[in-house]
Amino acid sequence: MDDNIDRLFGAVSARGHVCVGLDTSAEYVPPGERRGLSDADAVLAFNRAIVDATFDVAACYKVQIAYYEEMGIAGLSAYSQTLRYIREKGALAIADVKRGDIADTAMRYAKAHFSGDFEADFVTLSPYMGMDSIEPWLESAKGAGKGAFVLMRTSNKGMRDFEYLEVSPDGRRLYHAVGDKLAELAAGHSGRHGYGLFGAVVGCTERDEAAGIRARYPGLFFLIPGYGAQGGAADDAALLLREGNGGVVNASRSILRAWNAEALKSGADESWATIVFAAEAARRAVVEMRDAILAAVER
Amino acid sequence: MDDNIDRLFGAVSARGHVCVGLDTSAEYVPPGERRGLSDADAVLAFNRAIVDATFDVAACYKVQIAYYEEMGIAGLSAYSQTLRYIREKGALAIADVKRGDIADTAMRYAKAHFSGDFEADFVTLSPYMGMDSIEPWLESAKGAGKGAFVLMRTSNKGMRDFEYLEVSPDGRRLYHAVGDKLAELAAGHSGRHGYGLFGAVVGCTERDEAAGIRARYPGLFFLIPGYGAQGGAADDAALLLREGNGGVVNASRSILRAWNAEALKSGADESWATIVFAAEAARRAVVEMRDAILAAVER
Repeated sequence: MDDNIDRLFGAVSARGHVCVGLDTSAEYVPPGERRGLSDADAVLAFNRAIVDATFDVAACYKVQIAYYEEMGIAGLSAYSQTLRYIREKGALAIADVKRGDIADTAMRYAKAHFSGDFEADFVTLSPYMGMDSIEPWLESAKGAGKGAFVLMRTSNKGMRDFEYLEVSPDGRRLYHAVGDKLAELAAGHSGRHGYGLFGAVVGCTERDEAAGIRARYPGLFFLIPGYGAQGGAADDAALLLREGNGGVVNASRSILRAWNAEALKSGADESWATIVFAAEAARRAVVEMRDAILAAVER
Repeated sequence: MDDNIDRLFGAVSARGHVCVGLDTSAEYVPPGERRGLSDADAVLAFNRAIVDATFDVAACYKVQIAYYEEMGIAGLSAYSQTLRYIREKGALAIADVKRGDIADTAMRYAKAHFSGDFEADFVTLSPYMGMDSIEPWLESAKGAGKGAFVLMRTSNKGMRDFEYLEVSPDGRRLYHAVGDKLAELAAGHSGRHGYGLFGAVVGCTERDEAAGIRARYPGLFFLIPGYGAQGGAADDAALLLREGNGGVVNASRSILRAWNAEALKSGADESWATIVFAAEAARRAVVEMRDAILAAVER
C-alpha cells in the first residue's frame, strides 16, 4: 500500500494544489435547496454536490469538524457521511480536528479518526503538549497508511502570541522548535518522494518567511491555510512549495460560497440559486485557484 | 446566575477537590455487566452508576471525549447522555475536548460545547494558535454562565518539549507566557471569589514549581491532572491550591477501576464484580482521595 503522503503527492502532480475546505454551514447552502431539510441533511447534500463537481480538479478535501459538531449528533453523522463520500470517490480526506492529547488518549483518538465512523486519510494535530501527543498517532498511521499535519505556523493574527515567541538567542521561534521535532520524526518515516508521513500546517500569510521555512524543512509536506480571505496570494503559496509539489493550499468559503459571489455579481436574486449552480460555481472557483497557483509555480 | 467558576468554588468548599475523570472505556466495566450491551451502552450505564455513587463526595466530573469518539457516533451519543446525566444531578461537567481553533471556527465549537447535544459547564482548550483561539469562547461563556480551562503546564513527560522552552532571558517559559495571557484575561472576567471564568490546566507532577505557579497566578482556578498514576501526591496537589480552594484534582482510572483493584486485593474472581460493587468501590476511592487532599491542605 502506498503511504497516503505519496497519494497526496500524486494528487498534486495530477490535479494541482487546491485543498477544498468543507467548513460547511447550513447557511452556505442556497436557501431554495434548504427547504424541508434539516441543517445536517442540507449540509450533507451540498457537500456531496461540491465533491462531485470538484474531485477531478482538486488535490484533496479538508473537513473542519467544528461546523458539524455545532449541529450535535446529527451534524457528526453528516461529518461521517461526508468523509465516507469523499473516500468512496477515491479522493483524500483531511479531518481538521486539531487533536492534541497524550498516551492512551491519543491512541483512542487515532482509532477514532483512522478507522470506523470518522475514518479519514489525514488528521490535523496540535503540538502544545509535546511529542508524546504526536508520536502515538504515528504508530497508528503507519499501520493504516494514514498521515497527519501538525500545527506549526498558522495563518491567524494570534499566532504571534505563542508560535512566534523566540525560544533561543539565535532567533529560533516556537514554531521552529515544533518544525525541527517534526523534521526529526519525518526523517525516520518518509514516503517514496521524500516527504514524512507527518507534515505541518504552515500559513501563506507571512511572505518574508516562506522561502526560509521551505528551505529549512524540505522533508515536510505542508498544509497551507491563509489563501484568499486571510491575505495569502498564489505567489505566497508558491513560495511554500518545492519543485512544484510538497504542499496543498486550502480554501473554504471562497469555494463554498462562490455561487453567492457569482449571483451578487450578476445581480441575480440568490433565492434562485440551485445546488447544481452552486457546485458549478465551486468548480469554477477551484479551477481558477488551481490555475493561479500553477502559474505562480511557473514564474 | 452565578458564574460556573463560583459554582465550582462552592462545590470544592462543600465536597472537596476531587474531579472524577470519566475517561471510560468499555473494558473498565465489569465483564459480567457488559453482556448483551453495546460498548457505548455499557459505558453509559457504568458512568451513571459512578455518578450516582459519587456526586455528593466529588467537586465535579471531567469527561474525556476521546474515549467516546473511539466508539463513533454511538459513543458520542453516550458522551452526550453522560454530560446530560451529570448536569441533571446538579453536578458540574467539564468537557475535556482540548479544542483550539480560530475566529468563526471557535465560535462554532463554543456553540457545540456550551449548548445542545454536547452542553457542558466547562471545556478544556489548547492555546497553541494564540489568544484569538481562546477569546471567542469567552464571549460565548459569559452569555451562558460557562467557563474553560486552558492547557498551561501539563503533567505528561512531553510537556518539556515545548511548554518548558524558555521564551525570555529571565527564564520565563512558554507555559508562563500562556499563564500571563490567561491572567490578563481573568482580570477582566472574574467571579465572586476572585477567580477568572477561564482557569488553567496545571499538573501536580513538578513539585518544585508548584508554589511559584500558585503565587504568580492567584486569579486562576486550576484543573490539576497528574494525581496518582502520573506521580503526583496529595501534598503536591495541595501546593497548587490557595486557601484550600482554587483547584480541582482529577483522577480517572484509579476511580473507575477501583473495583478491579479491590477484587484483585481480596483474591476474588473479577467476573463476579457488579456495577453496584464497582460504583461503591469508586466512591471509596473518591472519599480516600478527597480526605488525603483535605489532610494535605491542613498540614
